[in-house]
Amino acid sequence: MAQMTLHPDRLLPADPAARQVARRLYESVRDAPILSPHGHVPPAWIADDIPFTDPVSLLISPDHYITRLLHADGVALSDLGVPPGTPLPESAARAAWRIFCARWPLFAGTAMKYWMESVLVDVFGLAVRPSADTADALYDAIAERIADPPYRPRALMDRFDIAFLATTDDPCDDLDHHAKLAADPSFRHRVTPTFRPDRYLEPARPDWCDLTARLGAVAGVDTSTFAGWIEAMRVRREYFVRHGAVSSDHAHTDAATEPLPPHEAERAYADALTGDIEPARAKALQQTLLFEQARLATQDGLTMTLHPGVYRNHSTADFERFGPDVGADIPMGVEFTRSLHPLLEAFGEDPNFTLVLFTIDETVYSRELAPLAGFYPSVYYGAPWWFIDAPDAIRRFRAATTESAGFTRSSGFIDDTRAFLSIPARHDMARRLDAGFLAGLVADHRLAEDEALAALHQLTVANPRKVFHLDA
Amino acid sequence: MAQMTLHPDRLLPADPAARQVARRLYESVRDAPILSPHGHVPPAWIADDIPFTDPVSLLISPDHYITRLLHADGVALSDLGVPPGTPLPESAARAAWRIFCARWPLFAGTAMKYWMESVLVDVFGLAVRPSADTADALYDAIAERIADPPYRPRALMDRFDIAFLATTDDPCDDLDHHAKLAADPSFRHRVTPTFRPDRYLEPARPDWCDLTARLGAVAGVDTSTFAGWIEAMRVRREYFVRHGAVSSDHAHTDAATEPLPPHEAERAYADALTGDIEPARAKALQQTLLFEQARLATQDGLTMTLHPGVYRNHSTADFERFGPDVGADIPMGVEFTRSLHPLLEAFGEDPNFTLVLFTIDETVYSRELAPLAGFYPSVYYGAPWWFIDAPDAIRRFRAATTESAGFTRSSGFIDDTRAFLSIPARHDMARRLDAGFLAGLVADHRLAEDEALAALHQLTVANPRKVFHLDA
Amino acid sequence: MAQMTLHPDRLLPADPAARQVARRLYESVRDAPILSPHGHVPPAWIADDIPFTDPVSLLISPDHYITRLLHADGVALSDLGVPPGTPLPESAARAAWRIFCARWPLFAGTAMKYWMESVLVDVFGLAVRPSADTADALYDAIAERIADPPYRPRALMDRFDIAFLATTDDPCDDLDHHAKLAADPSFRHRVTPTFRPDRYLEPARPDWCDLTARLGAVAGVDTSTFAGWIEAMRVRREYFVRHGAVSSDHAHTDAATEPLPPHEAERAYADALTGDIEPARAKALQQTLLFEQARLATQDGLTMTLHPGVYRNHSTADFERFGPDVGADIPMGVEFTRSLHPLLEAFGEDPNFTLVLFTIDETVYSRELAPLAGFYPSVYYGAPWWFIDAPDAIRRFRAATTESAGFTRSSGFIDDTRAFLSIPARHDMARRLDAGFLAGLVADHRLAEDEALAALHQLTVANPRKVFHLDA
Repeated sequence: MAQMTLHPDRLLPADPAARQVARRLYESVRDAPILSPHGHVPPAWIADDIPFTDPVSLLISPDHYITRLLHADGVALSDLGVPPGTPLPESAARAAWRIFCARWPLFAGTAMKYWMESVLVDVFGLAVRPSADTADALYDAIAERIADPPYRPRALMDRFDIAFLATTDDPCDDLDHHAKLAADPSFRHRVTPTFRPDRYLEPARPDWCDLTARLGAVAGVDTSTFAGWIEAMRVRREYFVRHGAVSSDHAHTDAATEPLPPHEAERAYADALTGDIEPARAKALQQTLLFEQARLATQDGLTMTLHPGVYRNHSTADFERFGPDVGADIPMGVEFTRSLHPLLEAFGEDPNFTLVLFTIDETVYSRELAPLAGFYPSVYYGAPWWFIDAPDAIRRFRAATTESAGFTRSSGFIDDTRAFLSIPARHDMARRLDAGFLAGLVADHRLAEDEALAALHQLTVANPRKVFHLDA
Repeated sequence: MAQMTLHPDRLLPADPAARQVARRLYESVRDAPILSPHGHVPPAWIADDIPFTDPVSLLISPDHYITRLLHADGVALSDLGVPPGTPLPESAARAAWRIFCARWPLFAGTAMKYWMESVLVDVFGLAVRPSADTADALYDAIAERIADPPYRPRALMDRFDIAFLATTDDPCDDLDHHAKLAADPSFRHRVTPTFRPDRYLEPARPDWCDLTARLGAVAGVDTSTFAGWIEAMRVRREYFVRHGAVSSDHAHTDAATEPLPPHEAERAYADALTGDIEPARAKALQQTLLFEQARLATQDGLTMTLHPGVYRNHSTADFERFGPDVGADIPMGVEFTRSLHPLLEAFGEDPNFTLVLFTIDETVYSRELAPLAGFYPSVYYGAPWWFIDAPDAIRRFRAATTESAGFTRSSGFIDDTRAFLSIPARHDMARRLDAGFLAGLVADHRLAEDEALAALHQLTVANPRKVFHLDA
Repeated sequence: MAQMTLHPDRLLPADPAARQVARRLYESVRDAPILSPHGHVPPAWIADDIPFTDPVSLLISPDHYITRLLHADGVALSDLGVPPGTPLPESAARAAWRIFCARWPLFAGTAMKYWMESVLVDVFGLAVRPSADTADALYDAIAERIADPPYRPRALMDRFDIAFLATTDDPCDDLDHHAKLAADPSFRHRVTPTFRPDRYLEPARPDWCDLTARLGAVAGVDTSTFAGWIEAMRVRREYFVRHGAVSSDHAHTDAATEPLPPHEAERAYADALTGDIEPARAKALQQTLLFEQARLATQDGLTMTLHPGVYRNHSTADFERFGPDVGADIPMGVEFTRSLHPLLEAFGEDPNFTLVLFTIDETVYSRELAPLAGFYPSVYYGAPWWFIDAPDAIRRFRAATTESAGFTRSSGFIDDTRAFLSIPARHDMARRLDAGFLAGLVADHRLAEDEALAALHQLTVANPRKVFHLDA
């Protein structure tokens, strides 16, 4: 039975001199409280302190990083408790866990392995490598632990020292969970919603008219006109702001922001409501609606984050059977310089506008992201995301952005995860990698150690606080 | 006269701790028989055990990696025995060899230097650096050796321990060389054809009607209809399968696979046969024909490999004078996520379909290839190809694909070469680099050494066997 | 008050064995005279040996690498002496300097920090880290030094040992400064103009008709026809050649070179002169005019350098207020393989044509640039440029180009700077990085040390001399 340990120097540079520096740097931020300004933890878990039901519903089913690779290896998604949320009998959960453990070598070299090891060892104290032989013992041990109070969400929020956690929410959400948490004096963490209006901005969706009507109903605003849609959005954003939101998040196919002229926008909106609008105009209207979100952001101060460039639900068959977010999303190339030009012309130097650009397409880091963030006061470059949220990729990211834009234009790390238990491992990973990168600059004699220390503090603490206005 | 030696630790990590691990890993696969599932060695060489005629026809003329860089340095291709196959008088061969040796510094830092050094030292036992001074001695020594039986192709197949070698063949080829080898009980290597039908899929080619007719004649099928073309292809693929083929290979300008609806395909095919079809429709028909190859693959089980994104014969003048494959091909950007969507919707989860994606465009590794191979059971990501078939590029490749897709979704190494004598050096290079990459993960504490050992075995042995169905 | 020193091993590899090799390599080129074949130093500075007026006009205002990052941090460009050339009262200069020093941590990890430290320590002997506390002392020390004769441009040309310096000049420039320098027997450096005709090639510009007329007037040629424009360009290029020019430089939005057929070019030119030409035709005409520059280059031997792919003046508001070159330019993706095909079909193998390709888009290095330069005798790949003119980026560049194209197809380093005082630091940086890269190849056992030494000499001395015909 192979042991599994977490080496104290993991991810730090191999070179002894750089490693010494990296250790000192890492120590300085290792225990800083976690700031998680973008993620996908369900707020109900925390609000209602719901105990986790079983190892698979907790660690496998909702983690599409993991289910996708098992699927590629020939496992049926339905055997993994996908879609998550489906009630899972103990036998099915145990069977899924056995599949996962038996196929553990699939994850060799991946970030998923790194995080899962941290969860097993650090969170559960289980220093045992998953395998067919160890599957049942691991299952039982985890199942036993999560039945205990120290493994409830709120206790883990304390243990993980998560100072700030943003969830992702629909504009029509009542945010009752957030309200409950805010009203609870015994809960000392900040858990805020994030305004995620994508669906309402896509007139080509078959359900767009219904969504628009619902938006109007919830906002108490007539959304039968373009102006009404904007006003309803303003109302709902304000509602989110009152519930603590610090950002809106936007994930469309691309980053295009060229708006229609007002009159054409009105007409396109009216046509879209009839359901009769050709794709190109629907796209132009989507860009217009996104542009208006930026304008609203200059008024209400919500930081705007963009996550473009993903082909969602690439497999129609799996989408129809299992729904979204099961691992069938595939990245595409993305372009920012021309796409964002209209938006930046309008708001790029507005002191009340903050825009964070995320990408899964690494090619834009040195070419577009760092140059944009290195000029526009409103623009920050976001952390590597999704498929590139991993050690080597993060090293490439720092090397590609820092030389022209420095550290102050970086948003800092974003875990963007549904895997609640992996949050500490992810932030710790980022801190180790940033410490290692900075130690490399020190070893290169490009940075003094005190400068590196200051930069690491910025990346870990100061930048997220600034970019997401956490001290406002 | 500068000596040239092959350092036992070449390409292994510089860091002493990682180097120790890398050595152990490398040792474990160093002597594994070579599996070469994609390459361009002429089968006649082996079938007829043809002695090599001279150093230039063997090492220079057919190796367009080498001729292209000499050409860039001002050497006329005609002075290098290009196009290969032209009879080369001894004086011309010697003159070409002198040119190559005198310009040896051109290759400093390139993969071509690495391979050629291995060939000279390891295959010929010539530890002498090429130069104007050493050219004649090297020429004479090589010429002498290749006249000896141990340097005949079959003896080298034994010495190189090539267990499996796939050639690349036209659908109308009679495969007699392969049949001869298969029928020879004294020949203990597996040499199989690869079905390479590109020309027959490109209706815009001036010779497409002739090719189609020839295909029909060879298959014994009337190819005057779209359905006939498919049937003829089915027949020829089956012929290849009977001769041991394990894959079909496809290299078009892009990876687009959107097929025409059946009726439009029939009409476009009919128009193409008249020679009167506009370029856009010819392209749509090419995509349809490629789509049909995938459908046939789900029936006959040939692994489909895609090598898109090369601008072939970029210099018309050189093409007219010297023909294809002389070094004048230039890569272009490529896109997979949208391009392959139609094909993957149809066959991506078909248990009888296997697709390996190669690219010369590194940007798609983390963005598209690893994500696709990490979800679709049918998809594997292929090794770096052509211009990026080299140490630093391979390191980038592993770093860019592993973190999201792991090692099991990798096809393993493909040498893709015409340079027969360099095959061992290329596979050895890949093994060293994979050992080094894995040792880096161990040094990073992301992988235990036994996990690294298992992964290296997968990459070297298990994955090629699985992806190309070598045990079927 | 933090000290600031330049470590003798800065940027050399951390691995002790590689570092030893790198030191020896670096030593061999450390003191080689500087060859700067492309840059933006105003020739008047040198011709008239104009003393620098103040630290800000010298080090901050003209350096848009620096002003852009200060702007991103919320500093108004007008507070930094932008646009450069505006007279700056001492109080305003001092205030700008204080801003820069107080925000010094902005530059942590950037190339700008690396260069500025070299300027302060090496050029001015000021080993003091900029900060709010040290700002005034640094200002006073620099102001004092630049008033002294040893800090005049000509003395610095001697001290920096700049053997060759190319400026960038308008085709209608009289080149009097260059003539003055050439006529001065006491001036022992070569300072040559570079022919930069971009504006005259862009018929979509509102001022194109005026520019064309001016071109005709200066050349003494009637430019009312396409043929006349070509002849005027020929005349002016010849004028530049007579004044020592070795290259023409071209920076359009993309690298497209498909020319219009002669008759259509004539018609498009005529229409453009009326001001009535649609954008697509204006673009086609621009490509035609660029194509003609290449044709002229085959006649007069000026090396052609391309710098495509930048969205100039991305912020209209800042352009209108401050003009160009203030840091508001943002790179875009670029494509060479298809774009350059027409030009290379025509001139790619012309022995009198030399083309150097620069890019800010790293994706083309392994995919297009190295393959093009590794085949066409006329093509060289240029050094990383602008946003990627920095240590990690240069390491990526070497790793991405060398393996297929070697070192002989590299143009060598280009500083491309307006920051005169940073020229030695930039070239020294390139030498260190190339020494380090080559030492890595030696450590990898891919190159013998004497081969690395020869390659470094090529990159530093031989290649620039060859590519820019400095010995012609």
